[in-house]
Amino acid sequence: MAKQPALAVIPLGGLGEIGKNMTAVRYGEHIILIDCGLAFPEEEMMGIDIVLPDYTYLLDNKEKILAVLLTHGHEDHIGGLPYFLKQINVPVYGSRLALGLVDRKLKEHRIERQSDLRPIIPRDMIEIGPFTVEFIRVSHSIPDAMALAIHSPVGTLVHTGDFKVDHTPVDGDVIDLHKFASLGERGVLVLMSDSTNVERPGYTLSERLVGKSFDEYFLEAKERVIIASFASNIHRLQQAILTAHKYGRRVAVAGRSMVNVLSVANELGYLHIPKDILIELDEVNKLPKNEVVILTTGSQGEPMSALTRMAFGEHRQVEVLPGDTVIISATPIPGNEKLVSRIINQLFKLGCSVVYEGSSDIHVSGHPSQEELKLMLNLLRPKYFIPVHGEYRMLKKHAELAQDLGIPGENIFVGEIGQVFEFTRRYGRLAGRVHAGRVLVDGLGVGDVGNIVLRDRRDMAQEGILIVVVTMDKHTHQVLAGPDVVSRGFVYVRESEALMEEARKKVNVALEKCINQGHCGWSYIKQEIKGALGKFLYEKTRRRPMILPIIMEVDKTTT
Amino acid sequence: MAKQPALAVIPLGGLGEIGKNMTAVRYGEHIILIDCGLAFPEEEMMGIDIVLPDYTYLLDNKEKILAVLLTHGHEDHIGGLPYFLKQINVPVYGSRLALGLVDRKLKEHRIERQSDLRPIIPRDMIEIGPFTVEFIRVSHSIPDAMALAIHSPVGTLVHTGDFKVDHTPVDGDVIDLHKFASLGERGVLVLMSDSTNVERPGYTLSERLVGKSFDEYFLEAKERVIIASFASNIHRLQQAILTAHKYGRRVAVAGRSMVNVLSVANELGYLHIPKDILIELDEVNKLPKNEVVILTTGSQGEPMSALTRMAFGEHRQVEVLPGDTVIISATPIPGNEKLVSRIINQLFKLGCSVVYEGSSDIHVSGHPSQEELKLMLNLLRPKYFIPVHGEYRMLKKHAELAQDLGIPGENIFVGEIGQVFEFTRRYGRLAGRVHAGRVLVDGLGVGDVGNIVLRDRRDMAQEGILIVVVTMDKHTHQVLAGPDVVSRGFVYVRESEALMEEARKKVNVALEKCINQGHCGWSYIKQEIKGALGKFLYEKTRRRPMILPIIMEVDKTTT
Repeated sequence: MAKQPALAVIPLGGLGEIGKNMTAVRYGEHIILIDCGLAFPEEEMMGIDIVLPDYTYLLDNKEKILAVLLTHGHEDHIGGLPYFLKQINVPVYGSRLALGLVDRKLKEHRIERQSDLRPIIPRDMIEIGPFTVEFIRVSHSIPDAMALAIHSPVGTLVHTGDFKVDHTPVDGDVIDLHKFASLGERGVLVLMSDSTNVERPGYTLSERLVGKSFDEYFLEAKERVIIASFASNIHRLQQAILTAHKYGRRVAVAGRSMVNVLSVANELGYLHIPKDILIELDEVNKLPKNEVVILTTGSQGEPMSALTRMAFGEHRQVEVLPGDTVIISATPIPGNEKLVSRIINQLFKLGCSVVYEGSSDIHVSGHPSQEELKLMLNLLRPKYFIPVHGEYRMLKKHAELAQDLGIPGENIFVGEIGQVFEFTRRYGRLAGRVHAGRVLVDGLGVGDVGNIVLRDRRDMAQEGILIVVVTMDKHTHQVLAGPDVVSRGFVYVRESEALMEEARKKVNVALEKCINQGHCGWSYIKQEIKGALGKFLYEKTRRRPMILPIIMEVDKTTT
Repeated sequence: MAKQPALAVIPLGGLGEIGKNMTAVRYGEHIILIDCGLAFPEEEMMGIDIVLPDYTYLLDNKEKILAVLLTHGHEDHIGGLPYFLKQINVPVYGSRLALGLVDRKLKEHRIERQSDLRPIIPRDMIEIGPFTVEFIRVSHSIPDAMALAIHSPVGTLVHTGDFKVDHTPVDGDVIDLHKFASLGERGVLVLMSDSTNVERPGYTLSERLVGKSFDEYFLEAKERVIIASFASNIHRLQQAILTAHKYGRRVAVAGRSMVNVLSVANELGYLHIPKDILIELDEVNKLPKNEVVILTTGSQGEPMSALTRMAFGEHRQVEVLPGDTVIISATPIPGNEKLVSRIINQLFKLGCSVVYEGSSDIHVSGHPSQEELKLMLNLLRPKYFIPVHGEYRMLKKHAELAQDLGIPGENIFVGEIGQVFEFTRRYGRLAGRVHAGRVLVDGLGVGDVGNIVLRDRRDMAQEGILIVVVTMDKHTHQVLAGPDVVSRGFVYVRESEALMEEARKKVNVALEKCINQGHCGWSYIKQEIKGALGKFLYEKTRRRPMILPIIMEVDKTTT
């Protein structure tokens, strides 16, 4: 009898980082994938639009891949799919909402026809190759989020996806604690659990609290109410719409993603929208101010978002007015603090009443705090534990928390993307490593911007560029034209004419030296120009712009 | 009898922004200045080193300026002085510590000899022109911070500088509440007060709490202790040093600004350093681990700081080791959250015990919370009030707070830099505007980088640059060499050779079209190249790199 294979878990994204969540689960010659997300670029990834997991490993094992399972419809779980499915077209399982959002993306990429999207509901059990997959309802900041129980011949892997424990969810669908309890009762081999909020003690508050806060602010508001929130937080938007209805206000929607997500959610029946409550954005100005609510994107202060454009008078249809109550129903994602601060200042300047972070329960997280994490660990009582979805320190803290609950340290794996973890009934171990990393997407280019291009962008952003062009005779090396020195992002040229003229002279001197010494190789000449000019500019300005010499060669014998 | 002039207050920095604090106070033909600070560049000011207030107004009124008064020695209050004094050399009054830090800067700029620094102590009263200036002790995150009472013929202006109310300061020098009370008793015409923390309810905690926390962590620490903090927080460093002494540890100092500030503070007697406790940084590795404390810069995760270099193995003398207790005694300044997060993750990876924000009383603010602001307002009972040092929303909230305390709304001015406020016994009013703004410093260049240069840097950072060079015959317009297309920060050239070759062809076509149609003006040709290439590249890549055509002209009749 052949040796029974181990269950291999291979995280390809979401460990040691926030975003681009993706995990491969392999048993023998069969692989299923959990999520296929994207990440948003870090500040130093200049000009990059989105970041994908590097799934070279999957391309190399294409024929083994059976399906992608989606835990929920957030970008960091589904955003990589259009790129992935173009290369590896396998069935995708997920909630109707998640698949609705995926479908919209596939249409943008024009691959919706060949894709195979398979809706599931909580407690569905699907056979996929050697795996039986159960979908389990959890609470999160988007409806129909699911954890997964993946039963394999050697045991059960549970992946929580993103979750929280909301005992009073807006849609009444409570997290399926009973299923987690029964899985724990039967025995869980491996648990992978959400670490995002592990640094927070206590419990994450219920989404319903935000609805209560909306009620208070609507009660006070004398003029228009503008609510900025994440488009995908359907329950929050639902609460805003119902509160508007209660106070006799009509609702307009601003911002492309808000319009899109609301329309998908509405079509699929995820929203209860009272009759005639929705109005077009350009009707807003025709109604009395105390009869209007605007739901908008821009809770992160994004410069091109509807809220920012409305606040800076750059929106075609609506502008923020003095007396408006603006509710920023979100906390800044790390890195966005300054942008959010900027929009809040602007709203104050306009004379709005601004409700933002810290001032009240106007936002709750979608992720579990420490007590919820403990509950999940104790319900499932896994033999092995891999904390996921978090930066390194969060994974580490989650590991410590699990140890406090009695899981032995040697059964806990604080991992990195690309590591291969193997589990059987007898052991769990780090068993190797596959290629993993990130792929940068810039416009239509996937992976054509890498470290060198980014370094050049960074260098030019710091001090600009000086281009030195000279045309030389191919044979005599006589200078026929130039040297011309052109700069961008370096200094105001008009105020620095003397400097640029001096720079030109330095180039001339360097050129003459080369020619007189008989060093007429292009790369030598370029090096000399770079050296002389770089030294000169640093002395004069204490700056080191990129210097790019270009030599044009004219063959006078042929022209 | 001539009409008595009004007291004019002209903020030139620090209103509607954090940093570059500077205020002109004018009575008739006499001006004194409060502080002369710098700001650190915003993210979009690429490559900029520091930002100065634009003090064109002062250059235009040079002969009226009598002195600069410093409230304390932080960069955002003294950092602009070397630039200012080069242009307007007037006496500078401040505490010995503030002047000690200024002197170090002046030496770097080689202007210490011609400068006139005049030390004062709290309760000093100085006559300057028509003004009598009183220096008043306040608590802050640097020793010897002062508020100013400026007595003029029409009344008294009080400027708090940066302050907090610390009833248990580390040096025992309590804020001079009695002086504020007596000023209030005699009558204050105008108050300018620190708005930084106006969003925080309650009281700011005492610096002494941080010392208690140090004690707890030193007690637990089995190996080395590394404390990252702001260099200028002398009291905190003092507490660290005394705690080290208590636990029999020696202290090494890492990071240029930490070494500098400690040496100034020590020379001037602001520090009590137990005998033989200080060691050189390279002696650290010779001592047992439980006998070492390292004080270091890098609490903001700055990439070039000593802590970052020690943590990433790039420091020449010391590296962070597993088992080290690293205390990050600061909160991230808005905009630095990601950098701080990065260093914390790295320290966890190294196996350190990391103490950071949120985990305990390891940092307290230097600015007053709401109750302290109310105390100041109630002690001074000013007739007019100008909230200062804060973004717009903070000034606005501070104004509301003052109104709650009974100052009439029409006597409160939420101002902008450049506005001129006039006060007499009979009125207070916005009386005009002078030029104000920011001056960017990049290397040695002061003001030579402006919006166009920054826009170019931003554009190149986003999508890179394509340079198109072609050499043409001056008379026949025949193409003698090129077109060459060179890119930086656009795509990996090696992987995109076909694209670049196609781009070259597009340029050729555009060129031929121009020549055939007889349009041989350079600017016309350049425009055509830009248009054709831009369109082509956007279609192919959905990117819009900067396109820079350069035409070289060869006069074959002369060469």
